[in-house]
Amino acid sequence: MEHYQSSLDAAFHALADPTRRAVVSRLTKGPAPVKELAEPFDMGLPSFMKHLRVLEKDGLISSEKVGRVRTCWVNTERLAGAESWLSEQRELWQARTDRLADYVETQMSRSIEDAS
Amino acid sequence: MEHYQSSLDAAFHALADPTRRAVVSRLTKGPAPVKELAEPFDMGLPSFMKHLRVLEKDGLISSEKVGRVRTCWVNTERLAGAESWLSEQRELWQARTDRLADYVETQMSRSIEDAS
Repeated sequence: MEHYQSSLDAAFHALADPTRRAVVSRLTKGPAPVKELAEPFDMGLPSFMKHLRVLEKDGLISSEKVGRVRTCWVNTERLAGAESWLSEQRELWQARTDRLADYVETQMSRSIEDAS
Repeated sequence: MEHYQSSLDAAFHALADPTRRAVVSRLTKGPAPVKELAEPFDMGLPSFMKHLRVLEKDGLISSEKVGRVRTCWVNTERLAGAESWLSEQRELWQARTDRLADYVETQMSRSIEDAS
């Protein structure tokens, strides 16, 4: 449970930044070298590397250096964990909205019956 | 687009904490007064209120004070936005995994044909 909570902390923390989300989005399409990942962003390589380190520390991506090229890939389990948590919440509030709708409908039918 | 990105920043930032996630979970079942929300947590009210302020600033909850009671409720649109973003990523990597599986299958069939 502790581990589950800390992996959610890490996933949501890593995703709270548009550059990091864009990197994750790019990597869902397949692994990529750092140089290619950095290209679309208007920032220095040191700043960009900081974002990659956050993503790696938070477990959303992994990387390996072969020769002079570091290649990154996405860890889909951590993303899946965050999505599961959010979909559980949606199910809870949808169940509640459905119950409310049922209640309103019952009350309305009763009002119509009473009036007739 | 700017607004979309900043609302995702805010949602993921707010959710990167177990206390704040627990409050969101509780509120998906219906609105609740601050006193009831704070009860399960082993922390002082000032610390707990800080979490509520983060949740409210990041747009995940709203609250209203009537008399001496402040009642909170969840803003489901912001949660739904975060879930949508994650499910888009899942669709991207699933599409990729499917393509990889198709490729491997094709290669294996060819190897079998070549061998026979």
